[in-house]
This record gives sequence, C-alpha cells and structure tokens, in this order.
Amino acid sequence: MTPPETPPETARGAPSLEFWFEFASTYSYLSVMRIEDRAAEMGVRVTWRPFLLGPIFAAQGWSTSPFNLQPSKGRYMWRDLERRAARHGLPYAPRAADDPRPFPQNGLIAARLTQVGLAEGWGVAFAKRVYVGQFAESADISEPGALSRWAAEAGAEGDALTRANMAENKDALRGAVERATALGVFGAPAFTVGDELFWGDDRLEDALEWARDQG
Amino acid sequence: MTPPETPPETARGAPSLEFWFEFASTYSYLSVMRIEDRAAEMGVRVTWRPFLLGPIFAAQGWSTSPFNLQPSKGRYMWRDLERRAARHGLPYAPRAADDPRPFPQNGLIAARLTQVGLAEGWGVAFAKRVYVGQFAESADISEPGALSRWAAEAGAEGDALTRANMAENKDALRGAVERATALGVFGAPAFTVGDELFWGDDRLEDALEWARDQG
Repeated sequence: MTPPETPPETARGAPSLEFWFEFASTYSYLSVMRIEDRAAEMGVRVTWRPFLLGPIFAAQGWSTSPFNLQPSKGRYMWRDLERRAARHGLPYAPRAADDPRPFPQNGLIAARLTQVGLAEGWGVAFAKRVYVGQFAESADISEPGALSRWAAEAGAEGDALTRANMAENKDALRGAVERATALGVFGAPAFTVGDELFWGDDRLEDALEWARDQG
Repeated sequence: MTPPETPPETARGAPSLEFWFEFASTYSYLSVMRIEDRAAEMGVRVTWRPFLLGPIFAAQGWSTSPFNLQPSKGRYMWRDLERRAARHGLPYAPRAADDPRPFPQNGLIAARLTQVGLAEGWGVAFAKRVYVGQFAESADISEPGALSRWAAEAGAEGDALTRANMAENKDALRGAVERATALGVFGAPAFTVGDELFWGDDRLEDALEWARDQG
C-alpha cells in the first residue's frame, strides 16, 4: 500500500524505511511530526505504517501501557514528552491530573482511517492532525465525529469512516500488526529497514542514516 | 562524596549534575564512557553516583531485568547496544548465545568499590575499566579477583575490597539507592539536576544542557 504522494517511478531504487506508529503512543507524536522533514533532507522514502500495540502487549501478558504498569516511568514519560516537544517546537498541552480521557486512548478507528487516507493521498495530513488533537488540544481521538471532521480537513471525500470499517481495511490493519510482530516490533514508534529494527523517536535519525547507507 | 579529581574550589557555583549508573545496566556503559568528554565540553561538573536497580525493580514486583521479562525488547537491546557502541567508537564484543555469564550481572561489589574509589580518587577510572571488562572482554564483573586487579590498576592502594565491604560503605550505597528512589529514578543510566530527571544514554546531552542552563 504505497501512498500515492510518493510516485512509484521516483521511489524505485531510492533508500526507504517503514515507519511504525500507533495513535496511543506518546512518543509516536514526536516522530509523526518530525519524519517528513528529516527524511526529505536525507533522501529517504518513508512508508507510513499505522499499527496497533494492544495485541502485541496482550501477547506478552500486559493489559495496558507500560507507562501505566510502571507509575514512576509513566510520570517521567509525561515530563520528558513535554521537554522533547518544546525542543522540537511542537505544540503540546500538558496532560492535567484530572484529565477525563483514558490513557492510552483507543486509536483503532484513527488507525483504520489513516490506512484509507494513505491509499487515497490524505493519510499523512490526517495522522498529524489526530496527534495534534490528542497532545495539543486535549481531544478524544476515539470520537468518530472529530475523526470524520479531521479526515475531511485532510482531504477525504465522502464517508471515509464507512470505508475505514470495511472488512478489507480491517484485515489490512491486522496484517500490519502481524508484519510488525514478525519484524520484532515491540513498541512505538519504530522504524524498519529490511530486517533492521530501530525503536523510539530517539532512533529516527539513526534509522534514516541506516536506510540511506543501504540505498 | 565529591571525587578529589574535581577540586572544590573550581566546582563551587559551576553547573553540575548527578550521574546515576548501575553495573548491570547495558546502556550505562555508553554514558560511563561518554560523560567525561561531553561534560567537559559543556563546563558541567559531574557527581558520579553508582547505585543498584535491583531494589527498585523488586519494589515494583520485578525479579530481573525488563530485558529478560520482555524477550523481544531484550533481543533488540543487544543489537541496539552494539550499533550505538560502534557509533561512539567504543570497544564492544557481542554477547554470544552460549555466554555462560548471567544477565544481568551482579554489580554489587563493583558498586561498593566504585564508591571507595570515588572518595579516594580512582573511582572513575575503575568504573570505566569494569564496564570495558563486561562489554568488550566478556568478563564476569562479580569476580573479586578481577575487581581487585582493576582497582589496583586504577590506583587503589592496599586492600580496597575490605574497605568496600565495611559497614559504613555498605550503608552509603543503600543511601544512594534511597536517594535515587526519592528522585524518581526507575532505570539507568539517569541524570538529575536538582529534581529534574533525565533517563537513558539518549538524554545525556539534554541533561548536560539543562545543567548548564541552570548554572
């Protein structure tokens, strides 16, 4: 599923990587906002791969995010995310102690919509919009109304939500989770160049360099 | 416990941070080898703080390293460590599948010796030697003979092992673990500037910048 925004004729033979992101993942926000510019600078083509960590965590016996399972790490993560967003000039609203939204949020519909959008040419703009909603505007990203509005803003025509919930699209997302698992992906964001795995926004630059050097 | 290698008169008023490292921690190796040069470049004084993660992990119900509890993350970590060591030009010998040494290794005596060494002026050289032994020479760092030899090479006089195992020194290490816990340290390496916590070798530069900007 190559996004139409990258014409196949320019992509052929160019260095490339797969970018694995999950809407419930806080550090995925940083990479989603940063990867286009950094990849362009380094001449690397990016294949955007929305996926779900829930099944991967469940397979190792976790019922929720490791940031909930380990509170000291969770407290640190929110502070670190705020510092890193500031460093990269990204919009960020600190999560209030009484924030009524669950953490992690349910990103299933957002992921399905992104897959549709990547095939139709509006997926990257949509994904970025969802993350800004979640981390800078205190939005609930499981809310179909907000998702439909953001999809339309990003360029979706007609009822994208219905297309997102078609069996074929659901199966494609399951396939993405299977491929991520087979590649050893255990968290997000992650970057793969063939079988070589890089984990975390802190490895974005390393992954791009690796892709460039394989090209 | 200011290491004598940093004369108090030059340190007074200078930006500083506390550097928390644990001998069983793989990523601590990278920071132990990198921090002196980077801190000197940025004019930041470093207080070396050997500590133990075992009691901190046990308090949250873990019996071993998270890299053992989560095998996919563990496999990734060894590959990532090898890549990062190469990037920083550090000696590194990949761990063999049939390596008879346990992981994580028991760094208790090494930590106690480092405390003695920091007070006596040979602690930093000793700590670096222990990490190189562990990650580049397949050494067992719980072996008292190797530790005594490395201490002597680093400049220890007499029977450093006996000084390391004195009640006062054991208590000081327990105190370090308590202070780390109070500061919210949940993994290693970590860096603290007052109450501000940074976790992981990937945050070494950020922590040094933070310390410099508070100075």
